[in-house]
Amino acid sequence: MNVIKNGTITDVKGFKAAGITAGLKKSGKKDLALIYSEYKAVSAAVFTKNLVKAAPILVDMENIKSENTQAIIVNSGNANACTGEDGYKNAKKMTEIIAEKLNLHPTEVLVESTGIIGVQMDMEKVASGLEKIVPELSEEGGHNAGEAIMTTDTFPKNLAVKIEIGGKEVTIAGIAKGSGMIHPDMATMLAFLVTDISIDKKLLQKVFSKSTDDSYNMVSVDGDTSTNDMAGILANGAAGNTKITDENSEEFKIFKEALNFVNKELAKSIAKDGEGATKLIEVTTKNARTMEDAKKVSKSVITSSLFKAAVFGSDANWGRILCAVGYSGAELIVDKIEIFIKGEDKIIQVAKNGMGIDFGEEEVEKILKEEKVGVIVNLNDGNYDATAWGCDLTYDYVKINADYRT
Amino acid sequence: MNVIKNGTITDVKGFKAAGITAGLKKSGKKDLALIYSEYKAVSAAVFTKNLVKAAPILVDMENIKSENTQAIIVNSGNANACTGEDGYKNAKKMTEIIAEKLNLHPTEVLVESTGIIGVQMDMEKVASGLEKIVPELSEEGGHNAGEAIMTTDTFPKNLAVKIEIGGKEVTIAGIAKGSGMIHPDMATMLAFLVTDISIDKKLLQKVFSKSTDDSYNMVSVDGDTSTNDMAGILANGAAGNTKITDENSEEFKIFKEALNFVNKELAKSIAKDGEGATKLIEVTTKNARTMEDAKKVSKSVITSSLFKAAVFGSDANWGRILCAVGYSGAELIVDKIEIFIKGEDKIIQVAKNGMGIDFGEEEVEKILKEEKVGVIVNLNDGNYDATAWGCDLTYDYVKINADYRT
Repeated sequence: MNVIKNGTITDVKGFKAAGITAGLKKSGKKDLALIYSEYKAVSAAVFTKNLVKAAPILVDMENIKSENTQAIIVNSGNANACTGEDGYKNAKKMTEIIAEKLNLHPTEVLVESTGIIGVQMDMEKVASGLEKIVPELSEEGGHNAGEAIMTTDTFPKNLAVKIEIGGKEVTIAGIAKGSGMIHPDMATMLAFLVTDISIDKKLLQKVFSKSTDDSYNMVSVDGDTSTNDMAGILANGAAGNTKITDENSEEFKIFKEALNFVNKELAKSIAKDGEGATKLIEVTTKNARTMEDAKKVSKSVITSSLFKAAVFGSDANWGRILCAVGYSGAELIVDKIEIFIKGEDKIIQVAKNGMGIDFGEEEVEKILKEEKVGVIVNLNDGNYDATAWGCDLTYDYVKINADYRT
Repeated sequence: MNVIKNGTITDVKGFKAAGITAGLKKSGKKDLALIYSEYKAVSAAVFTKNLVKAAPILVDMENIKSENTQAIIVNSGNANACTGEDGYKNAKKMTEIIAEKLNLHPTEVLVESTGIIGVQMDMEKVASGLEKIVPELSEEGGHNAGEAIMTTDTFPKNLAVKIEIGGKEVTIAGIAKGSGMIHPDMATMLAFLVTDISIDKKLLQKVFSKSTDDSYNMVSVDGDTSTNDMAGILANGAAGNTKITDENSEEFKIFKEALNFVNKELAKSIAKDGEGATKLIEVTTKNARTMEDAKKVSKSVITSSLFKAAVFGSDANWGRILCAVGYSGAELIVDKIEIFIKGEDKIIQVAKNGMGIDFGEEEVEKILKEEKVGVIVNLNDGNYDATAWGCDLTYDYVKINADYRT
């Protein structure tokens, strides 16, 4: 597997993209993105579990059933959430306009929105934006699309990797956005992947769902789950490989591994760019009794405001980690727990048998000042491992969210 | 029911208390509290559900079974948590010393600790403190005890009320501490109540457990659940009422109502004094399908960092409330939801049918600037109501927790 330098979604055969300013953001920044496959493509997606679902999510939950999906239209600046019947009609209208211009059926278009909740879309601006964006589609448009889906993100998130499947070169790429309200179970987090592999639609949905569970759903910034979360993928077969239909095949395994890599790397970049974050935190739980327990523990630690504030302050507070392990809901034996703090090139044990041990506090503080802080919780009570990602809790998180106007 | 002005635990017949400096806090502030009943008393308590339980909690889970409980010894400055076998022995030692001085059996003494995790108690200081505190016991010592259990609290929490039971005057009073790590399911939160009522021990446990579920367990400051949480009550019968043994009696109902009042008021004062808090937030969910659903919704809103930061910024962001309702896990119909913001003397509706409505944003902002902010979520889908309490998320929360040394 090779990571393409500065790669993005338009590095994938048969995909074009564009990102423009439609005027939905007061800042005048790009706010409309379009991804288009020149060939027929199968799609898969996962959606927010929040009962309050934004209008475009409701539309997509229908459209994802289509055997062909060739376009994804996304706006930022307005989430089209809590907007009722009118909002639903507007989301549908977006798919209809794009479908007409690209000669598709409306159900062959996915739509997403991100931004402020509870305000109707300015459909005049949207319509004129849709008019402008189609001619902008190009094989260099991926980075622009990646920019156009951002809200409070501080950097765009693009990734592309190449693998070989049955002698054919296959590319998998994605753009993502994160920042506020990022939490397990698909909080305001968008990820759009494209690949030129040829694969059965049902198999794509199965592997994609599992992969998002281990990546985006293991990210937490503030514990809130949004109305608009979605991760989706299009696969258009342009690589020319023999269609993958068997999940036990070598080809499928290679694809799965690369897909997991792309999703995890995008998930990490989302965690790193959490609102106000100064550090990426990675919590790995080892040797839990079940996978569910391993995930519970990692998520519990990464979600603890007290632990996150301690990391911001570079305070080696293992007690807060152990405390979060204890209330995670996982089955475990406290006396068996070991905790380690992991830096760039050093691992230091801070707790053993469920108790603190003597350790060089200065050395740990040095690690806690690095850009990436690792925590390993070894439960010593089974064979399941799971990793979760998040960021520190800072003054800036409060500032951004105490006065957030688009 | 009458609230006693500046009332505290020593306003209850037959109870003495003391609060002194033993030197466990670097600040030199009071850090050792003793509550003592001159008469035999029955006790009830609820403990943290965290699997990582502090040493004194383990001791109390045994001692609470005793038919007689006449003393509670509490230190602040050190939580005696994650301290293993030595910690357990030290907690037991504290009950033994107090028992000897007060002529009790060690199992007739409850012990609690609050403060830093993972450090062994300085037993020399503790022992000399225990030596000093017993002679300090007095009928005016309640306020000192209330002060001595504080950690990052900014004000002591005392309350006492009088009721009449079968022609006898009965008093119920309590001291509490809160601040960091306060969350449903008994997070670092201590509440010690005393009453002179005569009541059956089992009945006391039953009514006390239920009452804490609706009060302390409905408070959230930061979502963390600590290793040391506990709420306990002693009832010594000094009021001279006929012993209450029937939960259907009028006397029991009067007592229950007063007990609920004391617990809820102490819970509210804990929420108000959350670390860095500037406002008390009260979220009431109405007309849920089940009591569990009503609690889930209220807790989900009060725990949302995004909502809490919006309240700090006096931002009328009903979308974040609706979003938190949606991911609460409660069964509900989004289209039926109404949301109201409630101030001192005004209620303003901000959402209807699961959507925002036009409202005077300035008026709502005025309410959000008050010291107490109310939110009412009407699910219009059943008959169950529940209230939760919390506080706003502020710069100071991050500051206190990024650099918390006792």
